[in-house]
Amino acid sequence: MNRKADTATVSVGLGARAYDILIGPGLIVRAGAEIAARLPGTRAAVITDDNVASAHLPVLQESLGAVGIDSVTVQVRPGERSKSFETLQEAVDAILAARLERRDTIIALGGGVVGDLAGFVASIVRRGMNFVQVPTSLLAQVDSSVGGKTGINTAHGKNLVGAFHQPRLVLADTAALDTLPEREFRAGYAEVVKYGLINQPDFFAWLEQNWREVFSGGSARIEAIARSCRAKAETVERDERETGERALLNLGHTFGHALEAATGYDGARLVHGEGVAIGMALAHRFSARMNLASPDDAARVESHLRAVGLPTSPKDIAGDLPGADALLSYIAQDKKVSRGALTFILTRGIGQAFIAKDVPASEVHAFLKEFERP
Amino acid sequence: MNRKADTATVSVGLGARAYDILIGPGLIVRAGAEIAARLPGTRAAVITDDNVASAHLPVLQESLGAVGIDSVTVQVRPGERSKSFETLQEAVDAILAARLERRDTIIALGGGVVGDLAGFVASIVRRGMNFVQVPTSLLAQVDSSVGGKTGINTAHGKNLVGAFHQPRLVLADTAALDTLPEREFRAGYAEVVKYGLINQPDFFAWLEQNWREVFSGGSARIEAIARSCRAKAETVERDERETGERALLNLGHTFGHALEAATGYDGARLVHGEGVAIGMALAHRFSARMNLASPDDAARVESHLRAVGLPTSPKDIAGDLPGADALLSYIAQDKKVSRGALTFILTRGIGQAFIAKDVPASEVHAFLKEFERP
Ligand SMILES: NC(=O)c1ccc[n+]([C@@H]2O[C@H](COP(=O)([O-])OP(=O)(O)OC[C@H]3O[C@@H](n4cnc5c(N)ncnc54)[C@H](O)[C@@H]3O)[C@@H](O)[C@H]2O)c1
Ligand SMILES: NC(=O)c1ccc[n+]([C@@H]2O[C@H](COP(=O)([O-])OP(=O)(O)OC[C@H]3O[C@@H](n4cnc5c(N)ncnc54)[C@H](O)[C@@H]3O)[C@@H](O)[C@H]2O)c1
Ligand SMILES: [Zn+2]
Ligand SMILES: [Zn+2]
Repeated sequence: MNRKADTATVSVGLGARAYDILIGPGLIVRAGAEIAARLPGTRAAVITDDNVASAHLPVLQESLGAVGIDSVTVQVRPGERSKSFETLQEAVDAILAARLERRDTIIALGGGVVGDLAGFVASIVRRGMNFVQVPTSLLAQVDSSVGGKTGINTAHGKNLVGAFHQPRLVLADTAALDTLPEREFRAGYAEVVKYGLINQPDFFAWLEQNWREVFSGGSARIEAIARSCRAKAETVERDERETGERALLNLGHTFGHALEAATGYDGARLVHGEGVAIGMALAHRFSARMNLASPDDAARVESHLRAVGLPTSPKDIAGDLPGADALLSYIAQDKKVSRGALTFILTRGIGQAFIAKDVPASEVHAFLKEFERP
Repeated sequence: MNRKADTATVSVGLGARAYDILIGPGLIVRAGAEIAARLPGTRAAVITDDNVASAHLPVLQESLGAVGIDSVTVQVRPGERSKSFETLQEAVDAILAARLERRDTIIALGGGVVGDLAGFVASIVRRGMNFVQVPTSLLAQVDSSVGGKTGINTAHGKNLVGAFHQPRLVLADTAALDTLPEREFRAGYAEVVKYGLINQPDFFAWLEQNWREVFSGGSARIEAIARSCRAKAETVERDERETGERALLNLGHTFGHALEAATGYDGARLVHGEGVAIGMALAHRFSARMNLASPDDAARVESHLRAVGLPTSPKDIAGDLPGADALLSYIAQDKKVSRGALTFILTRGIGQAFIAKDVPASEVHAFLKEFERP
């Protein structure tokens, strides 16, 4: 369903919490009108980070002002460290100081960090305000802005504190990606690949053919983003609160999160999507090692990830890494642990991921040992 | 429906989130068995405060241990100030440090402060854990443990940050009230009276006759608590997220919260239920002043509240109070403000409360002026 010639719409069917994802160029310019049409009379708080603010905040503010939406802005430092209790509390205080009410709207303008933080703020201030996502990173457009997971990190690990809070609208401005650093675009692309690897082998094959066009922009980019959103939306529709198959979306994430933790969430060394790329490569290799899948599929996955410039092994990470023992203990603290047995997303081949419970920790440990540097 | 001869059960019908409230003596002793029956295999974190811990924690721990439920304990300081971001973060950290998982259970053992804090913790750790309320104050048994509102306070006001998170079970041990200070029991009784005043004039009349038996314990106490829980449950069933009639439960609370804020949440001067008692008396007097209700009803309400030893006027609060201007600005920051117009719960008489929108701030101001001390 098209709203404008170059805008794709993906509808997320969640009953009373259903919403649209609009995908196309120029959506930040149209944001005020799109929001006012759905949430008449709202006031707003824009949560953003310094990088995104300098590139896109004035356009958004003008767009809100043009339709008479009063707004305040909360600007946080860029980077994973803003997903903290401290920043949460600062943002909450700013919104309460502005006397926003329940029917007012929190707008996340930024990548996944801003989206996760802002969504959590929207979920807890006055026990729940309206929330609109304006994702500006590829990762946020294809993944974090869809599905309603919000949250922050703690010293015990990533995303351990948060809420399910669905947005009322997602505006994925594909032109906003033009200011995104190349490395961040690539990292987000790892999540696009993920949807192919989970259950859409044809989409993976399409990406192998068309990834250059996705990177350079235009209709292939819109198509890749819309297909990714649809894939995620379908999974979320079937399992909003991750009691089952939604866990498939964690393909690559158990290893990935451990590596992010092991590098101290230092984006200079490893950003989220890069961790996911390595994690997906490892999940495929480990599945082959467990005789679940063919090693050829693992090789094909690695080869595509390397073609676009993504890392595929812990050895691709610059600097020291802790050994297998430490990585395993990060894995064990991860959310996807069930009664002490390790739960992983493994695969029977490209597009055939599944939830594997009771994966022996000893096998994982031996596997991780291979990547230790002497 | 009785489970044991002296246990009343109130079922809260919220579809997938339905739960039972058990009311009777000795429920802390039985807590382990009741929880294990509903949440097999769970581990637990008990959140409690120092006062309640010394009176009841060992019994609860023994009861959990007897059925093989592993538990850790998080003990906070008694009082409203524990409903803070700081204490929230400490409790969250302790629970993550204990590696509790999503399917594990947070047990609130205490009054409304512990219940609101623990419920919020349960709602945000791993985006939602199981939650069981073991309310030990009368206020918590008849009000705060039922309905799923959880939260903390900020410098901007009470309960401005939180979540809706329904418990899986509420165990209201009426014998636990024997260790509750008399003043706290009286304060909780204000919320019992509230249900009569909202829409059950016969219950109010019953309380006028039977309040001495409610205070002294026994079957009248169980009956008063069960009737209160049923009244609250019915309202919550019809309007879980307070988009409409649930706001009636705020009878007395707009004035009450302003007085709590004005006394700096200093429990030595004013506890929540006392604020509500004054607030209900004021709501009835203000309604009479606005020619909505008869002054005789206001007098009858005040007379019953005074009979049990509750305050009915700001003048009953010891020490200095800010004037009408300051009280009004506390009211305007309260959650029940809608687009700048004041929303109050007013009444047409005993048992006839209603939601009044667009109450003129000038009338409220003039009314509050009368209670200023020279
Ligand atoms: N909620 C979910 O379901 C979900 C899913 C996946 C990931 N996540 C979370 O998302 C986060 C990662 O998201 P991310 O990769 O977008 O990180 P990010 O938000 O840190 O953005 C990456 C970097 O790009 C910058 N940036 C973003 N958009 C830009 C633009 N248009 N122009 C210039 N700079 C721009 C940011 O300032 C930042 O420096 C992680 O915290 C992860 O846990 C959440
Ligand atoms: N969530 C809701 O829907 C809701 C509804 C009403 C009130 N509340 C909240 O509840 C709070 C007030 O609750 P409260 O009045 O229970 O306050 P509270 O939890 O502070 O308890 C009052 C005092 O009694 C002590 N105490 C509790 N049980 C005891 C026992 N059995 N023996 C000895 N001492 C005991 C406590 O330590 C405390 O000192 C406020 O924060 C209010 O906002 C919430
Ligand atoms: Zn991811
Ligand atoms: Zn109350």
